Amino acid sequence: MNNTNRSILLQASEMPDKWYNIAADLGGKMLPPLHPGTLKPIDGASMSALFPDELIKQEMSGERFISIPDAVKELYSMFRPSPLYRAVNLEKMLGTPAKIYYKYEGVSPAGSHKTNTAIPQAYYNKMEGVKKIATETGAGQWGSALSFACNHFGIDLQVFMVKVSYDQKPYRKMLMNLWNGKVLASPSNTTQAGRDILAKYPDSPGSLGIAISEAIEMAVSDPKTKYSLGSVLNHVLLHQTIIGLEAEKQFEKAGDYPDIVIGCLGGGSNFAGISFPFVRHNLDGKKKTRFIAVEPSSCPKLTKGLFRYDFGDVAGMTPLLPMYTLGHEFIPPGIHAGGLRYHGASPLVSALVQEGIVEAQAIDQLECFEAGLKFAQAEGILPAPETSHAIASTIREALKAKAENTPKTILFNLSGHGYFDMYAYQQYLDGKLTNFVFDDSSLVEIENQTHPIELAFR
Amino acid sequence: MNNTNRSILLQASEMPDKWYNIAADLGGKMLPPLHPGTLKPIDGASMSALFPDELIKQEMSGERFISIPDAVKELYSMFRPSPLYRAVNLEKMLGTPAKIYYKYEGVSPAGSHKTNTAIPQAYYNKMEGVKKIATETGAGQWGSALSFACNHFGIDLQVFMVKVSYDQKPYRKMLMNLWNGKVLASPSNTTQAGRDILAKYPDSPGSLGIAISEAIEMAVSDPKTKYSLGSVLNHVLLHQTIIGLEAEKQFEKAGDYPDIVIGCLGGGSNFAGISFPFVRHNLDGKKKTRFIAVEPSSCPKLTKGLFRYDFGDVAGMTPLLPMYTLGHEFIPPGIHAGGLRYHGASPLVSALVQEGIVEAQAIDQLECFEAGLKFAQAEGILPAPETSHAIASTIREALKAKAENTPKTILFNLSGHGYFDMYAYQQYLDGKLTNFVFDDSSLVEIENQTHPIELAFR
Repeated sequence: MNNTNRSILLQASEMPDKWYNIAADLGGKMLPPLHPGTLKPIDGASMSALFPDELIKQEMSGERFISIPDAVKELYSMFRPSPLYRAVNLEKMLGTPAKIYYKYEGVSPAGSHKTNTAIPQAYYNKMEGVKKIATETGAGQWGSALSFACNHFGIDLQVFMVKVSYDQKPYRKMLMNLWNGKVLASPSNTTQAGRDILAKYPDSPGSLGIAISEAIEMAVSDPKTKYSLGSVLNHVLLHQTIIGLEAEKQFEKAGDYPDIVIGCLGGGSNFAGISFPFVRHNLDGKKKTRFIAVEPSSCPKLTKGLFRYDFGDVAGMTPLLPMYTLGHEFIPPGIHAGGLRYHGASPLVSALVQEGIVEAQAIDQLECFEAGLKFAQAEGILPAPETSHAIASTIREALKAKAENTPKTILFNLSGHGYFDMYAYQQYLDGKLTNFVFDDSSLVEIENQTHPIELAFR
Repeated sequence: MNNTNRSILLQASEMPDKWYNIAADLGGKMLPPLHPGTLKPIDGASMSALFPDELIKQEMSGERFISIPDAVKELYSMFRPSPLYRAVNLEKMLGTPAKIYYKYEGVSPAGSHKTNTAIPQAYYNKMEGVKKIATETGAGQWGSALSFACNHFGIDLQVFMVKVSYDQKPYRKMLMNLWNGKVLASPSNTTQAGRDILAKYPDSPGSLGIAISEAIEMAVSDPKTKYSLGSVLNHVLLHQTIIGLEAEKQFEKAGDYPDIVIGCLGGGSNFAGISFPFVRHNLDGKKKTRFIAVEPSSCPKLTKGLFRYDFGDVAGMTPLLPMYTLGHEFIPPGIHAGGLRYHGASPLVSALVQEGIVEAQAIDQLECFEAGLKFAQAEGILPAPETSHAIASTIREALKAKAENTPKTILFNLSGHGYFDMYAYQQYLDGKLTNFVFDDSSLVEIENQTHPIELAFR
């Protein structure tokens, strides 16, 4: 056997016991989220209608490392530490001198990185006596992960699932039902936010922004219901850093270190998860790793959006977040990477793009599907359409390394498997998918920054 | 964190480098396969139209351990060693004092244990210059695993997929196509065996026995094409012992040892894989582990079949194998556990049942689906319908341990995930599935043991 270890595994005992909070290292560079009524920085109290106290504390924390509770670590150990694999076959297929590693998050219940934050979020809600949670989901990765976690902790869950994905991915809905999650297609008639959209656009494919509005409205309308978000916010990204912290240990074992770290970007959580622990060594000045966040060309907030304050949802119920955005009313076309159909990028990732530490890249749907298929042919794992964006970028970098004849060490996050996305791949193979031209006519300044959002802040 | 390790992982360097050949420890107790023309034990030469020499050597080997080639170990390391998990949540759900462990083979390319033998089979064929392989597949687990392996080694593959599964599982077919496997629904019009069945039963749902006949006919009709079988034969079971050998090491790490080992049984390969390495310690007289092979009530060869010589396929093209069988013309009903729809059980497993070392159990489809769902709710992994048979039995044993208040250590093989079987689970949840009553009218002695099979032995 040659010396190429294709898998680098950690024992349960080697699982990190803290999350890394990059906010501690970015302190001065971060703009605060604003209360859209007062346009002043929000305080924790104004978020307590939505989140349990512990998550609000994490959202605003300046601690560099935050301990993972024992109960969370124990559930993590159902599937963590996740494997780090070397994509030797893909390297050979591309004829590249680059070494390609990937962290495989598809081993989790529900099959993606989302479980990393679903478990602690459900846990902290449980600890504070919450009986019901409302949330949104795009492709269903988040909704199914949170269904698993809520079911485990005995919390009721209402999921608003973006309509286009609801129609495309019936089995993801079934998975949520299996874990006792209730699922509505969004926009729905259940909320005012949903009804407003349906009145204007009866055939709306939905969007994460709309679904967030619906879930928040449900949470703030009922004192016994909290809200849970699967990406964007600081505490969500915090939980995902377990991915990169493990990868860091695995690279130590492999005697290697990444020159380039790549993740796909919807709201930013899987990208943050794989990259932030490595970013911290750049911030320390010890390393000069490149970080690439890959978004779909049809929803290019980092490459074609503006950095400014915007709402996290369509109806404008959230705080104003400092982020790259296409405008909170932007409805992306119904691409199959449903998890990337979000108008904004998390404030933490946005700040790193602003600082020039994170590079952004937009790639078309068809190139991504082709990359996903190539990867599956070589490595035997069919990636989720979201993840295929990271793979497309990885292939570009590996081919560049080949053209330049420079060995590079590339790490990407295989954030989830695509076994519930076979319909999409079939559509691609049958030549039924197209790229979308990004229409930037919606890229206008927010006209009404004082949109009535009192509900979210009572 | 409490001391319950939910995952017990091995490093790549700890992967076993030999397979365990139980035939060496059963020597005197095994009846030989017979040439159906002469009714004399077959020799290796008569199998060379079907298999490369190295596999024939393994099929007839008396060596106790057989080295795994470096190239195979390297590909294994894409996904092996596979994790051993403790099903803590399931234990709690059942309120059992039993400790439940499972070996998770769903991490492989194509998502099941089948890849363990697909890789070495493709490798040995490649080494001997074979350009094309023909094979059968039930639910598609085997066909997709072999497609992956053949694609890797540059071998053309023709898969005959049992018709009922071909219709139920279009995405498994797509997976085969993705790895350049060509797929025909069986019975097909491509072979005489297929045409004969279609003439008699135009609406035949197909069976593994029919698909095997078609694949063998294709192989023996073309000197450049070999045949490959996904279960039943000694060399196939040999390759699967990597599962149990790893599990043995993992139990050492956990400081535990199984009282009961459980696997589902179609032809017998995943059951053999998990159990044989532990059976050897029973054969040594050092342990008294119970071994339970679980079959579907609708295809109960071990519990209602006869032990005798029979063909491995419907058309009678294979050697006569000493095994438990329902008769080679038995066509099981179209249950969703397509991989278990086989009329016979491997000679090695059959011999162990004869010896009273392996117990057999038949469980109905509906109990198995319910067990699969319960497991998914607790542990977050949706098992293949085949695997759910092992889980149903595990739950029975865990509840027995509870009733008797005796702690037991149970190990089962989670042979594959069910993410391509969502349609089946949806059918179950919608109340559209039924159990099947086993019809034993087909349980007659073979009337024509001299069925013309010259083709297979020229």
